[in-house]
Amino acid sequence: MTQAKKGLDGVSIGDSRLSLVNGTEGKLIYAGYKIEDLAANALYEEVVYLLWNGRLPNAAELEELRAALAVQGAVPAEVLQQMKSYPKSANPMAVLRTSTSALAFYDPDSEDTSIEAQKRKALRMTGQVTTLTAAWYRIRQGLEPISPRKDLNLSQNFMYMLTGTEPESTAVDAINAYMVLLTEHSMNASTFTSRVTTSTGADMHSAIVAAIGTLKGPAHGGANEEAMRMFMEIAEVANVEPWFNENIKSGKRRIMGIGHRVYKALDPRAAVLRERAAALSKASGNTKWFEIADQLANLARADQYFIERNLYPNVDYFSAIVLYTLNLDVDMFTPLFAMSRMAGWTAHIIEQQTDNRLIRPTADYVGPMDLQWVPLNQRR
Amino acid sequence: MTQAKKGLDGVSIGDSRLSLVNGTEGKLIYAGYKIEDLAANALYEEVVYLLWNGRLPNAAELEELRAALAVQGAVPAEVLQQMKSYPKSANPMAVLRTSTSALAFYDPDSEDTSIEAQKRKALRMTGQVTTLTAAWYRIRQGLEPISPRKDLNLSQNFMYMLTGTEPESTAVDAINAYMVLLTEHSMNASTFTSRVTTSTGADMHSAIVAAIGTLKGPAHGGANEEAMRMFMEIAEVANVEPWFNENIKSGKRRIMGIGHRVYKALDPRAAVLRERAAALSKASGNTKWFEIADQLANLARADQYFIERNLYPNVDYFSAIVLYTLNLDVDMFTPLFAMSRMAGWTAHIIEQQTDNRLIRPTADYVGPMDLQWVPLNQRR
Repeated sequence: MTQAKKGLDGVSIGDSRLSLVNGTEGKLIYAGYKIEDLAANALYEEVVYLLWNGRLPNAAELEELRAALAVQGAVPAEVLQQMKSYPKSANPMAVLRTSTSALAFYDPDSEDTSIEAQKRKALRMTGQVTTLTAAWYRIRQGLEPISPRKDLNLSQNFMYMLTGTEPESTAVDAINAYMVLLTEHSMNASTFTSRVTTSTGADMHSAIVAAIGTLKGPAHGGANEEAMRMFMEIAEVANVEPWFNENIKSGKRRIMGIGHRVYKALDPRAAVLRERAAALSKASGNTKWFEIADQLANLARADQYFIERNLYPNVDYFSAIVLYTLNLDVDMFTPLFAMSRMAGWTAHIIEQQTDNRLIRPTADYVGPMDLQWVPLNQRR
Repeated sequence: MTQAKKGLDGVSIGDSRLSLVNGTEGKLIYAGYKIEDLAANALYEEVVYLLWNGRLPNAAELEELRAALAVQGAVPAEVLQQMKSYPKSANPMAVLRTSTSALAFYDPDSEDTSIEAQKRKALRMTGQVTTLTAAWYRIRQGLEPISPRKDLNLSQNFMYMLTGTEPESTAVDAINAYMVLLTEHSMNASTFTSRVTTSTGADMHSAIVAAIGTLKGPAHGGANEEAMRMFMEIAEVANVEPWFNENIKSGKRRIMGIGHRVYKALDPRAAVLRERAAALSKASGNTKWFEIADQLANLARADQYFIERNLYPNVDYFSAIVLYTLNLDVDMFTPLFAMSRMAGWTAHIIEQQTDNRLIRPTADYVGPMDLQWVPLNQRR
C-alpha cells in the first residue's frame, strides 16, 4: 500500500496546458508567457483569450471578446432582485456563491454540458461574476446595482459598476494588473475543486460555485482579507517591530500572506504587486499601509525561522495593500480574487472535460470492524 | 517524477473512521457495522448519530437527536420566499445548491468554523436539506411548503412535507432504508470535494454546497435519474432484450447504474435495494419497472463484456425503482440522494478539520515555454 498523501503534495492529476508554477525558482507562466510580461503589458481580456484559446488574440479577436464580456456580463433582473432580499450584513463570498448559483436558473445553457455550451457559459459567467461582485457592493449600501457598459473593458466596467462614475485610469490600471496576476495558478485548491466537480459530469455553474466556496477559505483566497486585517491591527509603522516580536517571534501567531504551499522562493506575483502597491500608495498620499507591510516583510525576511522555511510574501500580501489603497472594503477582496480567477477556473473545467476521468481517491479506514448490531432497548 | 493519477485511483488522502468500502468483496461498513445490518434495523437518525459520534446512541440520545433534527430542520422564511421566486422549471439540484447556499445568510454560526459551531451546523443543515428538498417539490407545483413536525423522524417528516398528510408506513420504511443505504460511502467525489473545500478553512455551507454541485453530475448522484430515464425509454418488459441488443451489445451506449469505480463485485446496497424494489413493486400492483430493471440486469450479468469487466448494478440502479414506485418525480431522485448523504458529508468535513492539511495536488505542464510578448498591433 502506498503511503497516504493527506494534502496530495506533489501528486499530479495529469497534464495541463494552462500554467506552470515553478515554486523553486519563483516562476509563473500562463500558456507560454511569463507573468511579468503579462502584468506589464496585457489587458485582462488578452489573458482570458490566451487561457481559453492557447494563444494571444489579434486586435479584432480581442475587441470581439471585450464586447462579448461587456454585453453578456449583464445579470438577469431576477437575480439582482433576489440579492436585494439578502441581509445587508451577509458575507460577500457567501453572496457571490449564492447569486452565481442562482444564475443557472436563467441561463439557457445551464444543463447543457456539451463543450460548446460550456464555452458559452464560461464567457457569460466570467462577465457576470464581475457584475455580481460590484452589484453586492452597491446593494448592501442601499444603492441600485449598475449594469456593465458595452464600451468598457472588464476592469473599467468593474470600477464603473462600483461607483457609477467614469472610471479613473490609475484605479483601472491597478485592477487590470491585479486581475491579470490572479487569473490562473495551476492546481490550487479552488481550481482542483472545480475539476473534481466537473469530473462527475456536473455543469459549469456547479463547478464554479464549488470553486467560489473553496476560495473563500482563509488558507486560500481569504488570505488577502486576513493580511489586511493584520496590517490594520498593527495600525502604525512604529508598531511593526514590537508587534512582530510579541506575536511572531514568540511563535504565537503566523503572518498572514507569508508562505505558500508551492513557492519556496519569492512569489513572482508578490514582486509585481509590491511595486504596484508602492506606486499607488505614493500617488494616494498615504503610504502608511505600504510601509507597515513592507517593514513587516523585511523583518520576516531577516528572521531565521522564515529563512529556514523559505517563507516569502505570497500574492495575497501586497495585493491587500493595492486593493485597500483603491478604497475597496476589506471583505470585498476575496470576491475580487474570484472574479479574476473566473478565466482560470473555466479554462480548467473545459480542459478537464476534454480528457475526463472521475476524480475519486480513497481513504484508509481505521475505524472498528465486525461490530454486532445491538437493539436500541439493549443499549446503555 | 511519479506518474500522473488522473482519477486519483487508489491514492489515499489519509485515515478515516467513517466507512470502509471493500470493492473486491462487495462489502460496506459504517463505523464498524455492516450495511446489511443497518439497512435491516436502523433508523436513519441512528446512523447519523453513529457517524457523528462513532457509536450507536441509547434511547435517550436517539430521541434527543430525532427531536433536534425535526425542530432545527425548519428553514428560514426568507429562504422559502426566495425559492418561490425561482423559475418552476429550475433543476431541483440547482435549486438545492442555491437554497442551501442561501441558508448561510440566516445561520448564526455560518462564519464560525470552530468545531463546536461546525457540529451545530451539521445538525441544522442535515434537517434543513430535507426540508428544502420537500419544499421545492411543493413550491414548483404552486403549493405552500410545509414545515417539519416536531414529533416525526426525518423519513416521516420528508413524506409529510411532500404530501401534507399523515405519512404512510410502507413509504416511510422505504425512504428510511434508502437514506440509511446512501448515508455514507468513503471518499466518493462529492465527499472528497467537501473535504477539499474544508481544507482551505472554508465554512460548512461552502463545503456542502460544493458537494451538492458535485453530486449533481450524471457519473455520481445523477445516475439514479439517468437509470430511471433508461427504464422509461425501454418502457415494456418485452422491449428489454431487443433494447439491450440494439444499444448495449452494439457498443453504442452504456447501461446507466451498472458499473462502479470501486465495486468489482455486487454493490451490497444494490442487493438490499433490489429486495426492497421487488417488495414495493409487488405491493403497489405495478411490477413492470422492477421487471424491466431486473431482466436488463440479468442480460448484463450473462454478457461477456460485463463479466470480463466485473460490471454489476450499483446503488443507483435499483434505487431508481424504489423511488419511482413511491411516486417521486424522477428529477427529485438526486436531491433525495443529497439529503441522505448530508450526515456523511458533515462527518467528513469535521473529520477533515480535526486533522487538516490543505489539499492541493499538482499538474504536469505540457504547454509552450518561453514565448515572447508580441504587442497587439503586431499580431496577425
